[in-house]
Amino acid sequence: MKIGIADTTFARVDMFKEVEPLLKKARIERYTVPGIKDLPVACKILFEKHKCDLVMALGMPGGMPIDKQCAHEASLGMQFVQILAGKHILEVFVHLDEGTPAEVVKIAKNRARKHALNALALLNGKETLSPFAGKGRRQGKDDAGSLE
Amino acid sequence: MKIGIADTTFARVDMFKEVEPLLKKARIERYTVPGIKDLPVACKILFEKHKCDLVMALGMPGGMPIDKQCAHEASLGMQFVQILAGKHILEVFVHLDEGTPAEVVKIAKNRARKHALNALALLNGKETLSPFAGKGRRQGKDDAGSLE
Amino acid sequence: MKIGIADTTFARVDMFKEVEPLLKKARIERYTVPGIKDLPVACKILFEKHKCDLVMALGMPGGMPIDKQCAHEASLGMQFVQILAGKHILEVFVHLDEGTPAEVVKIAKNRARKHALNALALLNGKETLSPFAGKGRRQGKDDAGSLE
Amino acid sequence: MKIGIADTTFARVDMFKEVEPLLKKARIERYTVPGIKDLPVACKILFEKHKCDLVMALGMPGGMPIDKQCAHEASLGMQFVQILAGKHILEVFVHLDEGTPAEVVKIAKNRARKHALNALALLNGKETLSPFAGKGRRQGKDDAGSLE
Amino acid sequence: MKIGIADTTFARVDMFKEVEPLLKKARIERYTVPGIKDLPVACKILFEKHKCDLVMALGMPGGMPIDKQCAHEASLGMQFVQILAGKHILEVFVHLDEGTPAEVVKIAKNRARKHALNALALLNGKETLSPFAGKGRRQGKDDAGSLE
Repeated sequence: MKIGIADTTFARVDMFKEVEPLLKKARIERYTVPGIKDLPVACKILFEKHKCDLVMALGMPGGMPIDKQCAHEASLGMQFVQILAGKHILEVFVHLDEGTPAEVVKIAKNRARKHALNALALLNGKETLSPFAGKGRRQGKDDAGSLE
Repeated sequence: MKIGIADTTFARVDMFKEVEPLLKKARIERYTVPGIKDLPVACKILFEKHKCDLVMALGMPGGMPIDKQCAHEASLGMQFVQILAGKHILEVFVHLDEGTPAEVVKIAKNRARKHALNALALLNGKETLSPFAGKGRRQGKDDAGSLE
Repeated sequence: MKIGIADTTFARVDMFKEVEPLLKKARIERYTVPGIKDLPVACKILFEKHKCDLVMALGMPGGMPIDKQCAHEASLGMQFVQILAGKHILEVFVHLDEGTPAEVVKIAKNRARKHALNALALLNGKETLSPFAGKGRRQGKDDAGSLE
Repeated sequence: MKIGIADTTFARVDMFKEVEPLLKKARIERYTVPGIKDLPVACKILFEKHKCDLVMALGMPGGMPIDKQCAHEASLGMQFVQILAGKHILEVFVHLDEGTPAEVVKIAKNRARKHALNALALLNGKETLSPFAGKGRRQGKDDAGSLE
Repeated sequence: MKIGIADTTFARVDMFKEVEPLLKKARIERYTVPGIKDLPVACKILFEKHKCDLVMALGMPGGMPIDKQCAHEASLGMQFVQILAGKHILEVFVHLDEGTPAEVVKIAKNRARKHALNALALLNGKETLSPFAGKGRRQGKDDAGSLE
């Protein structure tokens, strides 16, 4: 089991160091790029050249309108890469306007860790998460829970 | 006849349990992922690896602008998957801002059930729904009806 | 000459019955789906499985912002299908907020009929419409005319 | 050298007649479609069936928000066609809200003519325009010039 | 090692001359096009015909809403090209509304130079930038730094 982790120099929190200790069972390939728009092709390379079974894409878009547009472009690129590869990219994006700097650090660490566990669950089989379907799980904050 | 059902842990209503009893005629493959942006590749895998003839994608986007953007990215991904596969994905998305929590639960159940019937109709042949064309059918609420 | 017609149960006007009588020269394949986001893959199937030379996609998006987003996703899907097939899809979309209910009915019928004639012209050759280039033709309302 | 010219009956200025006299060196293939969303597949056909080396796409989007969305869809379709073909489409779009009717006519003619010259330059080699890089050239209006 | 540089005549600063001296170790292929929407296919040609290992795309979108839309279309096109090629395009876009003319010149030069160094780092291996992951690096302005 091989998990790729793509991250950026633009981000202001090193999420890789949150994720790595949780993925001891897997082999890890890391790929660091300048910004989020460089992530899709990095994921593609992690799938094709480095034979990863799943990739986590760690990014931190800015808070301006142009940053939202960049995040949108990066996300669409990652949709395209996933679909061509038939493999999951877990997008771990933390927007710099999600809270105060201290809150953003906390959100980033929480979201990265919870998605590391999601990565392991997805690689374990397609119904591993089914007991939690519709349960309002959240990454980066507390679960919202079921409405029923 | 094999129908895939992809759903999420982010959703706050378990729509799978509404859908399953209506699809007794078909074999079902379930795939649960964290959020709506993970649905397109899950649908792809349901088509390719699990040989589904049609997939229902059950998701519940949040009510913030960033959630609308995520829903848009997920929808475009699912367009791409459908087109490459030449098979239908019925997108059953319920937005968390469509009403009060109680209304959202009701909308979700209604929309999921009606689309389960649409799934069976589509698999029955391309003109099965033709008698209802232009009749203003709705899922999740009452039909709007024809304007003529 | 084979023309596909894809339409929806969501629409509130049956545009198929406007179009069919104008296409007597062609063989017609109809495909009815629930909503506009189901049209692109229906068009794909009409091209690939049913060997249509051109498809008309008849749809009627709602008037809310989320409906505009759905129309956008459907349109992009249809761009993708056309380009992969190398064949035209004439998108006949009538937005439910284009006028009063009575006006919407009138617009829908007019737009559907005029695009049926466009379909025949396109199948007749790539310069069939050239005498009208730049003439401000409109479907669903009166022509705007040339500015020169 | 073969240049395709795709244009529309929706446009209110016949830009083809501005462009043609400037392209005497090339063979021209014309393709007229109803509106801008029909241009991408016309360009595709001009590349594949008619073996064009470059296509000019002449269109005139309306001034309403829905028209901006259509222009966006057409542009994305043309990105996709260009990339698959590995050949340029020069998009010559004039928005009907760029000025008064008289100004729009003038802009359209100027933009069409300048892009005809760009077409010839691009076909002449990839560094033909390099002496003008960063010089603030504009089509449809006066050049903006360099900021340095 | 071969680096492509695609630039435009629309831009108002010649960023090529900032970049070239920093890339002495590599062979350079230049491709100049009219505007940013012509960049994606130029990048495609630089990858396929000219065998570049990475491309820098230098562009300068205008400050109007329509220009933001063009930049978005260009960016999506470049996502698509990168993914198909499995190679990086570093997008060096400077928006004309990022500051006064003098500031825009300064931003453009700084961003172009820093991304030239990023290009060399990426070609040096996928973990070359890893020591800087999460460090809040910026191009065109001062680094934002880590939040931790």
